[in-house]
Amino acid sequence: MHEALDENISSTSHRSSTFMDLFTATRKNLTELLGIPKQHKIYFLSSATECMERILQNCVKKYSLHFVNGAFSSLFYKTAVSLNKKAGLESVQLGESFDFSKFKLPKKTELVCFTHNETSSGVSLNLNNIKKQLPKNGDMLFSLDIVSSAPYVKVDFSLYDLVFFSVQKGFGLPPGLGVLIVSPKAFEKATYLYNKSKSIRSFHDFINLEKYAQLNQTPETPNVLLIYLFNEIVKDLIGYGIEKIRNETEIKSKLIYEYFGRSDYLSPFVKNVRARSKTVCVANTFGNSDLVVTGLKRYGLIIGSGYKDMKASQVRIANFPAHDLKDFEKLVESLELVCNKFKISEWKRIFQTGQE
Amino acid sequence: MHEALDENISSTSHRSSTFMDLFTATRKNLTELLGIPKQHKIYFLSSATECMERILQNCVKKYSLHFVNGAFSSLFYKTAVSLNKKAGLESVQLGESFDFSKFKLPKKTELVCFTHNETSSGVSLNLNNIKKQLPKNGDMLFSLDIVSSAPYVKVDFSLYDLVFFSVQKGFGLPPGLGVLIVSPKAFEKATYLYNKSKSIRSFHDFINLEKYAQLNQTPETPNVLLIYLFNEIVKDLIGYGIEKIRNETEIKSKLIYEYFGRSDYLSPFVKNVRARSKTVCVANTFGNSDLVVTGLKRYGLIIGSGYKDMKASQVRIANFPAHDLKDFEKLVESLELVCNKFKISEWKRIFQTGQE
Repeated sequence: MHEALDENISSTSHRSSTFMDLFTATRKNLTELLGIPKQHKIYFLSSATECMERILQNCVKKYSLHFVNGAFSSLFYKTAVSLNKKAGLESVQLGESFDFSKFKLPKKTELVCFTHNETSSGVSLNLNNIKKQLPKNGDMLFSLDIVSSAPYVKVDFSLYDLVFFSVQKGFGLPPGLGVLIVSPKAFEKATYLYNKSKSIRSFHDFINLEKYAQLNQTPETPNVLLIYLFNEIVKDLIGYGIEKIRNETEIKSKLIYEYFGRSDYLSPFVKNVRARSKTVCVANTFGNSDLVVTGLKRYGLIIGSGYKDMKASQVRIANFPAHDLKDFEKLVESLELVCNKFKISEWKRIFQTGQE
Repeated sequence: MHEALDENISSTSHRSSTFMDLFTATRKNLTELLGIPKQHKIYFLSSATECMERILQNCVKKYSLHFVNGAFSSLFYKTAVSLNKKAGLESVQLGESFDFSKFKLPKKTELVCFTHNETSSGVSLNLNNIKKQLPKNGDMLFSLDIVSSAPYVKVDFSLYDLVFFSVQKGFGLPPGLGVLIVSPKAFEKATYLYNKSKSIRSFHDFINLEKYAQLNQTPETPNVLLIYLFNEIVKDLIGYGIEKIRNETEIKSKLIYEYFGRSDYLSPFVKNVRARSKTVCVANTFGNSDLVVTGLKRYGLIIGSGYKDMKASQVRIANFPAHDLKDFEKLVESLELVCNKFKISEWKRIFQTGQE
């Protein structure tokens, strides 16, 4: 960040060759990091929420289908409803995943929306099962929300036509940038709809995004500083090695779930072991999540409480590339101290009086 | 910026009380700085380009009218056409302003779009003339683009229902934030259209923006860092005094235009003295703008070349609150040295060979 300030990146004109070089480099580096096929397009939007809206506007005339198992998959579904699509809904309880072998995708479906990692519940979809059990017909498009699992998740870009994330989770950056990866098939669908109806037109429709991307630019003045920082992080991650990051993510998540398993105060929220997210680890507390969150703060560690209704009863632990193995060893040690060393009643007293 | 990093602002959740306090404070401070009436709404979008699109989507069923005298007013017009509106166009040559006494606004017009300060040409509209010469009928809305004239311009919010700017010009911040100020009448129109048709729905339609604004939040994860920095700048400007800023802007622009008047190498592009922008001062060069731009760089000063087709022949000098009177005195002195001391042929040699 300080380097970006020194180089005066944020004053760079978005029509200058400096910006065009940055745009080109960022796409090239992200392509390398995530293994994106060359013919896929990469667009910079302002948030993952915007990505959902643009995907629906550009690629769906009528029918989308949504696998909903938490707040973020639900947001995608609600966006489709509000955009006047005939949105189908397959939903399970919070903390559950899907048995994809039970479903058959209706032929009329234009877009099927999957949320790889439900940030609200800590459930990850099994991408192998989707591939094996949900055959996609010729015209159908698949979208995959990887907001809280990128760059850990290995995406099969031959299957997913619309893949998106924002940069404030696994890339550890300030919020304000959404990245959308579009397959040639999805772009073709957008072009077809664009030519057929004027209703999808926008400064951020795929046709206009592509027109500027061909010039290595964005339609509007973008968040240049954040694109710069994103490119720097992507380069760092390439240097570190994506396979190493993936291995370490799995080792760190194993540490956490093992602790959830043996703890008297915490237990894993997601019962199905194979559906447990590697990047957002969620546990029920036998009491109040504040005791754990506040307790860890005393050790200089910050974890999240549960999402919305689960705020008081759950904790959520992010496992992103910025956290190294030592951080996680310290986290588990501190969790043990916080949850085991004191009796619960003792913690309650400390929490209420503020005095140890 | 460094303070923001120290306070770890960019990791603040956009659903936390810290963010809600920031949201509230930013709206309150901006209201004070620009004299925005209490009942007007303030929304944070991602760019001025997005503001144009959201204004048209939310407030125009069919007819918008655009006064176009450069690239940015033209972009607003083109956005309306692409959104399938019946967009009317009143245009003049680059560098010209409008004689508003000649126009009568057609009754059917729902929205009239004015660009107060054409960044591409350095022409400012005369807001007094608009008020006197263009009577607005009961239902009509007026929008005003103040991208490159805020916070200098004094906006009559009783006349302009939709006022917008981005923060990378007069507020001197990195790009990535658009601010849109909406009158109760414009919000009412948006509500009417929203209830009548589903086509305007979006995560950034006024109804959804307002739903979250009532909670002092934004629909999506916003650019928290930039909102924080914007609030800091607004507080600084309030502390400095908006009237002082306006006076100084006028003194600084007078210095520049006086120099354009007496220079042999530069002449003001906008012939009509009253239409000359106070915040973006544009001059023709009798040669190549690169000679001036490169010459000034040797004195550590950065000015812009002309916009697009005028790149080679014009220079543009931004006059924003971040530049103080001393900066401008130095700029004029340096301009004199660059343009007068050497013969043009001499500068050409230096520019071509890189040697003095």
